[in-house]
Amino acid sequence: MGFSRFTSLVSGLPATIPFVGPETQERQRGRPFDARIGANESAFGPSPKVVEAMAEAGKEAWKYCDAENYQLKTALSAHLGVPYDAVAVGEGIDGLLGLIVRMIVEPGTPVVTSLGAYPTFNYHVAGFGGRLVTVPYRDDHEDWQALAETCRREDAPLVYFANPDNPMGSFVDAGQVAAFVDAVPETTMVVLDEAYGETAPDGTLPAADAFLDRPNVIRTRTFSKAYGLAGMRVGYAIGAPDTIRTFDKIRNHFGVNRQGQIAAQAALADQTHLKSVVDAVAEARERIAEIARDNGLTPLPSATNFVTIDCGQDGVFAKSVLTALVESGVFVRMPGVAPLNRCIRVSAAPEAELDVFAERLPAALKAARG
Amino acid sequence: MGFSRFTSLVSGLPATIPFVGPETQERQRGRPFDARIGANESAFGPSPKVVEAMAEAGKEAWKYCDAENYQLKTALSAHLGVPYDAVAVGEGIDGLLGLIVRMIVEPGTPVVTSLGAYPTFNYHVAGFGGRLVTVPYRDDHEDWQALAETCRREDAPLVYFANPDNPMGSFVDAGQVAAFVDAVPETTMVVLDEAYGETAPDGTLPAADAFLDRPNVIRTRTFSKAYGLAGMRVGYAIGAPDTIRTFDKIRNHFGVNRQGQIAAQAALADQTHLKSVVDAVAEARERIAEIARDNGLTPLPSATNFVTIDCGQDGVFAKSVLTALVESGVFVRMPGVAPLNRCIRVSAAPEAELDVFAERLPAALKAARG
Repeated sequence: MGFSRFTSLVSGLPATIPFVGPETQERQRGRPFDARIGANESAFGPSPKVVEAMAEAGKEAWKYCDAENYQLKTALSAHLGVPYDAVAVGEGIDGLLGLIVRMIVEPGTPVVTSLGAYPTFNYHVAGFGGRLVTVPYRDDHEDWQALAETCRREDAPLVYFANPDNPMGSFVDAGQVAAFVDAVPETTMVVLDEAYGETAPDGTLPAADAFLDRPNVIRTRTFSKAYGLAGMRVGYAIGAPDTIRTFDKIRNHFGVNRQGQIAAQAALADQTHLKSVVDAVAEARERIAEIARDNGLTPLPSATNFVTIDCGQDGVFAKSVLTALVESGVFVRMPGVAPLNRCIRVSAAPEAELDVFAERLPAALKAARG
Repeated sequence: MGFSRFTSLVSGLPATIPFVGPETQERQRGRPFDARIGANESAFGPSPKVVEAMAEAGKEAWKYCDAENYQLKTALSAHLGVPYDAVAVGEGIDGLLGLIVRMIVEPGTPVVTSLGAYPTFNYHVAGFGGRLVTVPYRDDHEDWQALAETCRREDAPLVYFANPDNPMGSFVDAGQVAAFVDAVPETTMVVLDEAYGETAPDGTLPAADAFLDRPNVIRTRTFSKAYGLAGMRVGYAIGAPDTIRTFDKIRNHFGVNRQGQIAAQAALADQTHLKSVVDAVAEARERIAEIARDNGLTPLPSATNFVTIDCGQDGVFAKSVLTALVESGVFVRMPGVAPLNRCIRVSAAPEAELDVFAERLPAALKAARG
């Protein structure tokens, strides 16, 4: 007999995880991957200055972190040109999304997102009992007009929109983002997820202060992607101060750890390294696209640190390609629902890992076709 | 105009933090503290092997952490002699408490705790709309008989009990803990917080597997105290597998960061360092007690890494002592409610910091008496 008084909401939830990590797959396979290019991590690594700052700070790990994230927020505020109180820091975008959902969602609350978009957002919505209303992608782009229209139709208080998008790598320009924000009712909170913003072309991201007069817009960003700090779990939110203040009502105040704070500050300070990673990502995207084309597949245009490759058939076929790749030691992932799941998704990485991909893709395709 | 559709629960919460950190106070003072002995951190520091492991791991910070915390859970399972699935890992005990509260508490749910016990637990209960029912301390101990009785009277599904206790440093033996667990209805989840367990006398903690057959007991422990890793935010819970599994329904799967996982594993592996810290804490407690007595104050017996000092008068007086200490550069804290607030609380620390405390306490007392 289990404990009888968990809430009915929690009792009804599955014990699940949004993603099975590569470590779990390696344990199941009994051997490590030869190429880790599935989770859109930055194998180009963090800045050497970050590594140094963390090593230096290790002996101070006995001190609680600053619950206010004061230094990091000050640095972000200066870097972005927004007020200090327009920034919140959290345990990665995942942590921030959990808090945003908790702010707004109760059992039955309609929440709008794109069908096949970020699963962790959906996990949090389910965790608070929300009702997901999904909008299909259009031409492999999140369909912002339809998202806005669905918000109105459902009178939904929350909508998720990622630009650039994951898992397709597509993007819209800043003008369209502004048009989307305009099209959404003021009674709908827009989560504008810009996790992949650093690798997008100029003109993709609206100015950092573009929506600070809109209490219904929260933008989320992270040190996990281009800054190369996925393991440190540091994300931040930008929004109207009155909205941002809401995080202080419910967050785990010491949730971002000391090493994470130090790493993020050092990363932000080394924009030269960021630039070099962005350049390396652009080259890697080219290389991945070339490998795809060499194998008769179609790489989709990408503004992110990954390339989504159309395998040219249905989800069953793409899944076979993915399975063969994974079995051959290449960690990749794929979108979860049709028609996006005709694709596999390959993260930008240094040459050696892409060489492994190039070497093993032909056999994987052959196996899938066989 | 702010955003209009936050939940009524969240709208009604204050934007607050359970603790004002020393960094915040230092910013307000405009200068650093000379002794940081207020947050029960371990100024004896983490094991040098931990510092080394973290420095080594820094360059891998681009990889997401293992969402399953597999290696750390495996190590904890072996160390504790409990099954792997009887352990959950989270972002410090604070993070775990937030999840436990979320599992059980809905608006209006009665939750039992001691009056003056851990504020962060209360913060989480408020955050989910629970109704706190408090039980006074008895002779500076949490009154477990009254806690159990209150659970029955209120038909409360959740109770918090810390052993050893914070902020008083008191403790009961394992037999009394077992009696408490027996006295609480099966329909009440017992959070048995053992954050300070490592520094308690033998016979204080029940065996790690003592309550695994009770789905209504979750024990929480941490690497923040004796292990010297407050900044890394790693706590763990021990309980019946069916209960522990509930964490997987709602946790932030990547919430414990990679450096935290590595630090905790290395810390657990160095029990020699832990032993040396436990010995140093015992000596420091003696020293703090001696300083108190030298100044005509009464140190309370402590099983923790701090000593609570009875200042011999009321809360106003103790607050004056505390304020004078803080102004003189000594970071200390005190319990929040009467009659506990006749005390100040001083963390075990190396000699140099306790020297500063010894040097400045007389003037602080004089100022408070003046």
